[in-house]
Amino acid sequence: MTNSVFDLAPLAAASNGGNNDPRLPRQRYVGCPQAPSKMPYTKYIAYDKQVPFEYPERTWPDKKLQRAPRWCSVDLRDGNQSLVNPMDSERKLRFWNLLVSMGYKEIEVGFPSASETDYDFIRMLIERELIPDDVTIAVLTQAREHLIHKTYEALRGCKRAIVHFYNSTSVLQREVVFRKEKEGIKQLAVDAAKLCKELEEDAHGIDISYEYSPESFTGTEPEFALEVCDAVVDIIKPTPEHPMIINIPATVEMTTPNVFADQIEFLDRNLKNRDSIVLSLHPHNDEGMAIAATELALLAGADRVEGCLFGNGERTGNVDLCTVGLNLLVQGIDPQIDFSRLHEVRKVVEYCNQVQLSERHPYIGNFVFTAFSGSHQDAIKKGIEARELAAASQNADLDSFLWQVPYLPIDPKDVGGTYEAVIRVNSQSGKGGMAYLLKVNHHLDLPKRLQVEFDKVVQRYADETKREVKDEDIWRLFKDEYLPVEESGKHPALADSHDATLEKWGRYRLMAANIMSDESSNDTIIKVKIQDNGMPDDNQEPRVRELSGVGNGPIAAFVNAISILGLNVSVLDYAEHALSSGGDAVAASYVECQIGDEPEEQIIWGVGIDSSITTSSLKAILSAVNRTQR
Amino acid sequence: MTNSVFDLAPLAAASNGGNNDPRLPRQRYVGCPQAPSKMPYTKYIAYDKQVPFEYPERTWPDKKLQRAPRWCSVDLRDGNQSLVNPMDSERKLRFWNLLVSMGYKEIEVGFPSASETDYDFIRMLIERELIPDDVTIAVLTQAREHLIHKTYEALRGCKRAIVHFYNSTSVLQREVVFRKEKEGIKQLAVDAAKLCKELEEDAHGIDISYEYSPESFTGTEPEFALEVCDAVVDIIKPTPEHPMIINIPATVEMTTPNVFADQIEFLDRNLKNRDSIVLSLHPHNDEGMAIAATELALLAGADRVEGCLFGNGERTGNVDLCTVGLNLLVQGIDPQIDFSRLHEVRKVVEYCNQVQLSERHPYIGNFVFTAFSGSHQDAIKKGIEARELAAASQNADLDSFLWQVPYLPIDPKDVGGTYEAVIRVNSQSGKGGMAYLLKVNHHLDLPKRLQVEFDKVVQRYADETKREVKDEDIWRLFKDEYLPVEESGKHPALADSHDATLEKWGRYRLMAANIMSDESSNDTIIKVKIQDNGMPDDNQEPRVRELSGVGNGPIAAFVNAISILGLNVSVLDYAEHALSSGGDAVAASYVECQIGDEPEEQIIWGVGIDSSITTSSLKAILSAVNRTQR
Repeated sequence: MTNSVFDLAPLAAASNGGNNDPRLPRQRYVGCPQAPSKMPYTKYIAYDKQVPFEYPERTWPDKKLQRAPRWCSVDLRDGNQSLVNPMDSERKLRFWNLLVSMGYKEIEVGFPSASETDYDFIRMLIERELIPDDVTIAVLTQAREHLIHKTYEALRGCKRAIVHFYNSTSVLQREVVFRKEKEGIKQLAVDAAKLCKELEEDAHGIDISYEYSPESFTGTEPEFALEVCDAVVDIIKPTPEHPMIINIPATVEMTTPNVFADQIEFLDRNLKNRDSIVLSLHPHNDEGMAIAATELALLAGADRVEGCLFGNGERTGNVDLCTVGLNLLVQGIDPQIDFSRLHEVRKVVEYCNQVQLSERHPYIGNFVFTAFSGSHQDAIKKGIEARELAAASQNADLDSFLWQVPYLPIDPKDVGGTYEAVIRVNSQSGKGGMAYLLKVNHHLDLPKRLQVEFDKVVQRYADETKREVKDEDIWRLFKDEYLPVEESGKHPALADSHDATLEKWGRYRLMAANIMSDESSNDTIIKVKIQDNGMPDDNQEPRVRELSGVGNGPIAAFVNAISILGLNVSVLDYAEHALSSGGDAVAASYVECQIGDEPEEQIIWGVGIDSSITTSSLKAILSAVNRTQR
Repeated sequence: MTNSVFDLAPLAAASNGGNNDPRLPRQRYVGCPQAPSKMPYTKYIAYDKQVPFEYPERTWPDKKLQRAPRWCSVDLRDGNQSLVNPMDSERKLRFWNLLVSMGYKEIEVGFPSASETDYDFIRMLIERELIPDDVTIAVLTQAREHLIHKTYEALRGCKRAIVHFYNSTSVLQREVVFRKEKEGIKQLAVDAAKLCKELEEDAHGIDISYEYSPESFTGTEPEFALEVCDAVVDIIKPTPEHPMIINIPATVEMTTPNVFADQIEFLDRNLKNRDSIVLSLHPHNDEGMAIAATELALLAGADRVEGCLFGNGERTGNVDLCTVGLNLLVQGIDPQIDFSRLHEVRKVVEYCNQVQLSERHPYIGNFVFTAFSGSHQDAIKKGIEARELAAASQNADLDSFLWQVPYLPIDPKDVGGTYEAVIRVNSQSGKGGMAYLLKVNHHLDLPKRLQVEFDKVVQRYADETKREVKDEDIWRLFKDEYLPVEESGKHPALADSHDATLEKWGRYRLMAANIMSDESSNDTIIKVKIQDNGMPDDNQEPRVRELSGVGNGPIAAFVNAISILGLNVSVLDYAEHALSSGGDAVAASYVECQIGDEPEEQIIWGVGIDSSITTSSLKAILSAVNRTQR
């Protein structure tokens, strides 16, 4: 076996090149000696040793993406054939309808010469007239005579179709699979093109266009791939008005995507009859870089992209059409596809493919808009507020305003999501998340120092349970800590405040308050009824105390009144806001109190909620008092 | 709000640029008119409008990867903080042990100033002396005084550590989160660096090195990031012998990876004191291109990579250290990490993170080495055989031989996998897969035309059931089709041949054979006992027929003998091979027979298995005969 793909010396030195090679990066590796690991790296060889190709005349790294490519979904073909249980016709039809509804205009529907199921499905689409006028189906076939015949048979009665034929052109497959030299491989493609043109003459009434793929392109010398494509173009004779598709498959992803982009730019600049050609990509994801390969190749001049929703497809999958489309969106480019109900799309795709998406799948995974980190949560909160403020200050509609929010590359709303999952709290989170959840879900806007105080409660709980702290946990913790004796029913937010899981505690409870202000003296006089449940260990029967006090306002008067109970309280800070709009709005009050005498004084917050803004602040003071005695 | 990030006009035209812009790719879009879709693309803006940066002097696209970078796992920090349920100390310790056993030498272990769990875990590592001498822990802290204090506290008694401090530098966060100008942001970093140096003086006995990250780098002007990093370097004063790490986080991935590579090359060439700096990457995966961003940035001069196993981490995750490492391996580069038990690694990671990997995850997903497509299966089979042949012809150890197999970028064995899952058969598969499974699992090497014949049986079954055809299904179908009257027990492969689900059928069964060859005449005489069960509808009692015949060999003699039963058989092709090695090897025989008279003759295969090579061929003939009468 001479000049074989197996001939190359399996030596590590050969695959790495010397240290003075200008093509090597300027890496330094300060202080990191490297002894060989146990991995058998000598068994593999660098891509540029397999497919030598240099293209220093590249211009793509200076380009920017401008517009969406033509899209072609291969979910019903490449995607389908990679499933443990390929779709039956019910699932196939459902997927077809989904693709059409999202706006895909080219859909590869199967390999009718290789599978009865595919054949029958295509017949059904045609016979039941399920193909909209602006949608074109594509059918795949190997460049082999009997398969091409059967392919045309499947298309009878179709208005318009793309016949997609391919043969493998790689060095390796030429040697081990086809045992043919380059000329023989090229001839396979040419013969297939000729047969297609012949059969086309009998395919009355079908507007047929062609697509050719030099399969396993990434293992093919680009110059040879060009030669084969040009030979096919010579037979098909496309025109600018009736172009053909030259589709370049990264059948197996074999190296970094800049190399693929170089190859595409080489083809873009050298393909014969380029104005009559739609240069298409079909990237796979073996090295996890299919999305990058696609985007860089679009910079390099490609016009069209084949892929699957969420990256289904053989092995590691085809390129993910949703991620590429949404990557364009977040650059301000119209993706030409409707992703506004992406969560529903996901459900249909998971049902049809019976393959689950990862939690971290870009734009749609369950966690991808979730910030657990406190500093991230804080930044997101500030970003959303700043955008709202900016829009309001210009009287502009929020949705016409640029989305600029830290850690959230896209507005979850734009793909049919909600903000609910954006902020979640675990033991690693800081106070930002907790404050955000209380604000968004319970309309409580905690003062900063109260956040710090309550955060300790949440952190302690998170560290103890080692689990995610859900919104309902935070709300329970908050009620237990600050509102143990509140009555339920006063406000929807408190409807469940006496849930069975919470123990009612707290020594003092406000029963009634009567506030009289005297204009002449600027004094406020207060009379209150307070129920005293005694200290927890006392087992004392509750008794009601009637107290009165005076001050320059109700808070001062109340503090004065309860001093009779031996409570030495001074109010250090105070904040209050409405929980909802309207006449019977409920107010939340927050007071920071110093309670007790030096050196045993405590600084502690209390919270009160009531439809009366004064009552809520009195309750807040008792909340702080009760907490000192817990 | 002037010069604000929200100031930019939210117009599509503004974000796309004009048609004559030389930076736009040469896309043609033949025949594809584009009307605007319903996606709100005017709400987003191109990256280069947010962070203008051009770097035409780039050299990285001409570079090749040469060696593994320094790796740093951030699984216990970034990975952990992104979990719904962060790890408890048991899971954390298990993950730590895994990372150490794989060969990671730098491990970020937590954010001790933000989480008690992290703090306690770090104390445990130090106090129980769980850190090997060649492993360095890193601890993260925000560049804020009280947090840095607590961080040093966590390190008491540690031999060596990296103190990693960061602050956010992006345009957006400067405006909406910190409300500081550039100078103020730089000062935060400088102050933190100064405090670190001060505290270091009290940290007796700890060999401390530093890492600084300009967080949200991708939203930061590269020139400003450089300025901040240089200012930090001025304080820390690293030397080539005691370097510091400058870590560049793609905190949010915001555009194509070539732009990130440009930015990294810019830093690589311009960072002050570069010989004393380890240039590190911390890419996230928001646009699904973190792996590409990492590899291109390594070309651009980076020395070190931070990431997580299988790409765990905030939102869409950090870069996947396993995929990057294995991408290096398949280029013939020693990854410096032991991936040989990747399937066990996966189990531990899934247990610790409680996050499932996708079926299509590069190198480890359940489907990534699986070929369902017939042509792929055929090519894989031929590739594996060609490699074995090439190695054998040079008397070389197979494992020292280059791995070159179509559609399989890596030898599954090298990551602790098996070939079992490589070939699976569904209704989309051709005959390659079925033939491969019969060969690998049942040692049957079917002749090509027999493959074609049996494939129809498998295809019919697949189209009917619409499910994956498992190996056991194929084996059942094969036995039912060709071996209906075989006795069990003769060979392990046949031990289950009479399973209850199979109906025994077939009119004739060989009971005994006596073969006598006569040297003088070159004739072979055969005497056989054949049990005749009659036609299925006859309800005839089985009867034993004793027949004899003569021919130039046992097959010819047998064909002659059974002609008495009215069977007109000619053997068209014949193949036989041993099923196993050793003295009592069992043989499989395949015969292609023409049975019956023109114009009603049938061409049909039969299969026989027996420890006698002659008996197996006689059984094969009866198998073909029986099949014509089914």
